[in-house]
Amino acid sequence: MTIEADFIWPVRVYWEDTDAGGVVYYANYLKFMERARTEWLRSRGLVQSTLEAEQGVVMVMRDISARYIAPARLDDELAVTVILKRVRGASFAVTQEIYRQADEVLLVEGEGSAACLDAKSWTPRRFPEVLKGVFQPG
Amino acid sequence: MTIEADFIWPVRVYWEDTDAGGVVYYANYLKFMERARTEWLRSRGLVQSTLEAEQGVVMVMRDISARYIAPARLDDELAVTVILKRVRGASFAVTQEIYRQADEVLLVEGEGSAACLDAKSWTPRRFPEVLKGVFQPG
Amino acid sequence: MTIEADFIWPVRVYWEDTDAGGVVYYANYLKFMERARTEWLRSRGLVQSTLEAEQGVVMVMRDISARYIAPARLDDELAVTVILKRVRGASFAVTQEIYRQADEVLLVEGEGSAACLDAKSWTPRRFPEVLKGVFQPG
Amino acid sequence: MTIEADFIWPVRVYWEDTDAGGVVYYANYLKFMERARTEWLRSRGLVQSTLEAEQGVVMVMRDISARYIAPARLDDELAVTVILKRVRGASFAVTQEIYRQADEVLLVEGEGSAACLDAKSWTPRRFPEVLKGVFQPG
Repeated sequence: MTIEADFIWPVRVYWEDTDAGGVVYYANYLKFMERARTEWLRSRGLVQSTLEAEQGVVMVMRDISARYIAPARLDDELAVTVILKRVRGASFAVTQEIYRQADEVLLVEGEGSAACLDAKSWTPRRFPEVLKGVFQPG
Repeated sequence: MTIEADFIWPVRVYWEDTDAGGVVYYANYLKFMERARTEWLRSRGLVQSTLEAEQGVVMVMRDISARYIAPARLDDELAVTVILKRVRGASFAVTQEIYRQADEVLLVEGEGSAACLDAKSWTPRRFPEVLKGVFQPG
Repeated sequence: MTIEADFIWPVRVYWEDTDAGGVVYYANYLKFMERARTEWLRSRGLVQSTLEAEQGVVMVMRDISARYIAPARLDDELAVTVILKRVRGASFAVTQEIYRQADEVLLVEGEGSAACLDAKSWTPRRFPEVLKGVFQPG
Repeated sequence: MTIEADFIWPVRVYWEDTDAGGVVYYANYLKFMERARTEWLRSRGLVQSTLEAEQGVVMVMRDISARYIAPARLDDELAVTVILKRVRGASFAVTQEIYRQADEVLLVEGEGSAACLDAKSWTPRRFPEVLKGVFQPG
């Protein structure tokens, strides 16, 4: 694949993802993007369920945007990218793209930023020390 | 409406509920059934988020079944019923039906039983005293 | 309610809408926004399933954005607004907000634009004549 | 893995699958089961989107049941099985189980039967000739 990104996650389109228009329902692309972010973080050592249990913090999306260029359909194989754009003490921002694998056509592109919050009070908290390496290059 | 039940809850079909077959996705009827059960319990004074916060218990489905007779489609108005079949000290069972309101055709029928569990240990617990009235007739 | 908008649609939060963080899953707010847009269009005479069957066109979101300010939780009653921002020959744009009804706190705000497409070729098409009145003020 | 079945499909639990109870939402296990059925059919040469386009038929669930034994949680890796129980001229029935991979504990077990329908009229149709091999042993 010639798609370039910090991380690429494959997603298959199932019946559950589609709607009566015959294409993937617009909100479900955000599920695909979250799966890719989750696997990108996992690939760097950050497991979110462990993070909450051990550090008492959660990662929460603060804002998102998406542009729908072409639709994905049942049985399509997609490639969902993650590109890290910015890291601060308690937040990070990514760009994400969704391609159809068969012809590498760009279907959806989006951006989002996530904040690190206290799991109980839901207020901002700096990334725990153990996450130091997660957002380092390469 | 001539449909008879202990409780009837209206549901409108939106794009999110449908799939590329042009009909409601089969698992989504279970969402409609849960909305009806939730509103039936609410109508009898049981609010599940309060139940967990104040009594430390949750209601969890133990088993379900469904027969799909005819499909619901985008923009359909449905009527989802709840009929209480059985109550025990730590569980209850219901029958539920989903009708298309326009012609009262039966689309889906199902059964399910729910258990009362300790919200932390996820082990069975008798219904709290405050629920005494919830499962009484009429 | 003191919330002002072209249209306001009530939404109740059910188990299906929440995630293990104890709040509404971030993509599901887009479902709430679509329900509000669908009901706003219906209130103005546009039923999307009829539109496709009779005119051969569909309304498709081209871009969306959302800012998550505070979370909605199980059993919350929300108010989802639609404010029409712009209408062109084959597209329209809206601003939408999601409030918690109990205290009218703003939880999510977003924008989106939709295009009118040929239902078969998925290419832009001008709004059919019958929709003339739909996007008129008042 | 010591789990035995005609087919086993791995599923990872993401935020989208969970609810505020901290576990997978009860209807979402049916999505996992459908993914496994879809991949089992694909492994035997049946691609459902092609089937509809080329043969004008769809596979539709007629009835399902499930027993929830223990909950799956965020980040769990699951194994979803398919065991073919019965094939007739226009329908088939399966048993499916969902295990947690880490300890092979059985979480959910269910059954379901699917019918072959004409994609337009939604009436029963015998399996097309091209599917002859799909439901053969081995």
